[in-house]
Parts: sequence; C-alpha cells; structure tokens
Amino acid sequence: MTRYPGRYTSTGVFVCFEGGEGGGKSTQSRLLRDRLAEEGYAVRLTHEPGDTPVGKDLRRIVLSPETGALAHKTEFLLYAADKAEHVETLVLPALDRGEVVLTDRYVDSTLAYQGAGRALDRDELEEVSRWATGDLRPHLTVVLDLEPEAGLGRFEERDRIEGEGLAFHQRVRQSFLDLAAHDPEHYLVVDARRSIDEIAALIAERVAPLLVQARRLAP
Amino acid sequence: MTRYPGRYTSTGVFVCFEGGEGGGKSTQSRLLRDRLAEEGYAVRLTHEPGDTPVGKDLRRIVLSPETGALAHKTEFLLYAADKAEHVETLVLPALDRGEVVLTDRYVDSTLAYQGAGRALDRDELEEVSRWATGDLRPHLTVVLDLEPEAGLGRFEERDRIEGEGLAFHQRVRQSFLDLAAHDPEHYLVVDARRSIDEIAALIAERVAPLLVQARRLAP
Repeated sequence: MTRYPGRYTSTGVFVCFEGGEGGGKSTQSRLLRDRLAEEGYAVRLTHEPGDTPVGKDLRRIVLSPETGALAHKTEFLLYAADKAEHVETLVLPALDRGEVVLTDRYVDSTLAYQGAGRALDRDELEEVSRWATGDLRPHLTVVLDLEPEAGLGRFEERDRIEGEGLAFHQRVRQSFLDLAAHDPEHYLVVDARRSIDEIAALIAERVAPLLVQARRLAP
Repeated sequence: MTRYPGRYTSTGVFVCFEGGEGGGKSTQSRLLRDRLAEEGYAVRLTHEPGDTPVGKDLRRIVLSPETGALAHKTEFLLYAADKAEHVETLVLPALDRGEVVLTDRYVDSTLAYQGAGRALDRDELEEVSRWATGDLRPHLTVVLDLEPEAGLGRFEERDRIEGEGLAFHQRVRQSFLDLAAHDPEHYLVVDARRSIDEIAALIAERVAPLLVQARRLAP
C-alpha cells in the first residue's frame, strides 16, 4: 500500500463506516452521531453516494432502471464524480472547521464492490478513487463484519447489488477485511453479530482519543 | 509520451476533429461524412460530450445553470464518464464492424480545456482520460488551428467556456499544437483560415490511405 500513503487532516475527525449489507452501518453511525452531539461536538453524518446536489442526480442515474445498462467504467466514474464532489464541497470544509464527519460508505466500498465484480482492475479503481478524493483518508474506518449469508438474510427484498451471488458478497467481505489488515492503525473490525450496545461501546472507545482534533460547540 | 503508447483498432477508421471554437470542426466533419458515404463507406458522425443516453444526462448536468458550481474534479470525472460510455457503447462497436467513425472532440479537448484551466494536473487528467477510454486512439486527429481572436470573433454570444480570457484560449490552442507535434504520424494540423474546400481536400488526402481498414457497404 506504499503507493497510496494517504492524507489525514490535522483538524476535525473523519470516521467512515464500511461493510456489507445488514451489518448495522446506519444504526451505528447514528448512535455515534447522537453520542458525540450530546458531548458537545460539532458532528456531521453523511453518506455515499448522493449526499450533494449533483450526487443526488448521479445516484438517480446509476440506480434508475430508466438508465439501462451502463459500461462498467461509466458507472465507476459516476461514483468517482460523486466522491470528488462529496469530499471537496462537504467533507473537507467540515473537517477544516474542526467538525467530526461520519460517513456511511466511502472509497473502501467502491474498491470492495466494484473491485469484486472483477470487470475492472482493482489497482486502477484505487488509483482513480484516490485521485478523485485527493487521497483523503478517514482517521478511522469501522468495518461492521458479517458473513454474507447472515447480512443478506435480513432483507426481504434485494436490490440489484444485493441480488448478486453469494461468492460475490464473499469477495466483498474479504476485500474489507484485507484493507483493514493492511492498516490496523486506521481500522476497527467489529463482529456485527455482537449487540448494538457492545458495538457502540467498542466504536466509542476507538474514537475517543481522536477527539482532541475535534471542535466542541459553545455550551 | 511513452507512458501512453495508445491503442489503435485494426478494423474501422477512427478520425477525430479538434481545435478551438470557430475553426470549422462541425463543417469539416460533416463534409467528410458526406464524401465517405457517397464513396460507399459505412460512416458514423458522433461528438463529445453527450452522444449516448447517459451522456445526454451528463451534458445537461455539466452545462445547466441549475447545477451551480461543481468541483473541478467532479466536472472532469463527469466528462470522463461520458467518454467511457461513448467509447465502449458507440465508438468501439462501430469500429469493430469496420465503420469509419468521425468524432467532433475527444480526449485532446479534455486535456486542452481542463488542463489549460490549471486547476488540475495535466498528467493526472491524461491518466484518467486514457483509462476511461481504454487508451483508444484516433488513427488521425485533425486539428483545425486558428488564433483565438479570430475564432471567438465568429460568435455573437459566448457560453461559459468561450467567455474565458484570451490567455486561456491561447493555452488551449498551444495544447492542441503540442499534442500534434509529439505525434505527427497521427495528426494533421490545418490552418483554419484556408477555404472550406481546400481544407476538405487536405483532410480527404490524409484519410484516403486509412480507408483500407474500412468496410464498404454493398452497392
């Protein structure tokens, strides 16, 4: 991973939630948001794709059945454009103001899902994604790890991505675990079968020392 | 340029028209289309951005005042997505069928316009653009060269791009000329002040030997 040393801001705290479907990313990111807000921190909860005006357009294009088939590279570049806009107009300004930014999915999801599809070269996806985001890295990425069989079973209806085969989701899971294994300082892997409160406590424990970079709102 | 050796198809003929505004790209590409069609070749005239269904959406997003300001990288990545879709779904299939594909603007326009803006690194733009297009190169790029003062003067109204300063358009022009100078085998630079017929004849002369790769329609 020496080719991508990463860039970490010196103000604000950037925490990312990753993992397959059904692992509790939304639940845990909201719990952390609430906890930090109660403690008086300026905190912003966001997500990819689609949390900017142009991102909403791009999300619609990528997910709408009206769009029809897109070339793999087209789809990837639309996600990359969403990331570029997200980082430059929302994430970086908030970090510059000393806020805690929590995002539901980021670059790792692209690498895991689009890389696992095997149609595109994983290193090339990483290169373009890092360029799109200015190589901005989360101070901490929380991977909510779950066997695909368990995660997918939590949904009655499956969208296009979730409708992929089990082998695909196993590659996705392995991709998140590999990213975490290469950079333990910036990752926390949690067994998503643990209780919501246990998981929330583990996350809070890892986030606590990062908060020296965070701004507290006036009481 | 060794880093980007380029990829040229062995069937079909790919000809690209480049240059600043007012140089006659539309006129000359149509004249060549008509001439080749009369000679019995299967010929397809296309353009960037926006000549695919998703490309039309992207063009609208990039050009619409409703979109508001976009990050430079976002805008570039939307153009790159347009290129990826254009090449994979339209240009390559037509070349595979042995057709002559004429495109009004391609990668050089991205490098010239977005590179000349100086907000983004030229080499990085090239790397991502080459990746998006699978490094597919035109067998011939026709640069219709004109002093910016002359080209811009031909329009009463100027859009956002054309409203840039003269120094910007001089950098754009120089960028096209530099690309041509590095690869004379695949470029034809024509003085756009010459007459329409003279220019059309020069282009036809350079295109003629390429047509051995082109498919003729049954009479």
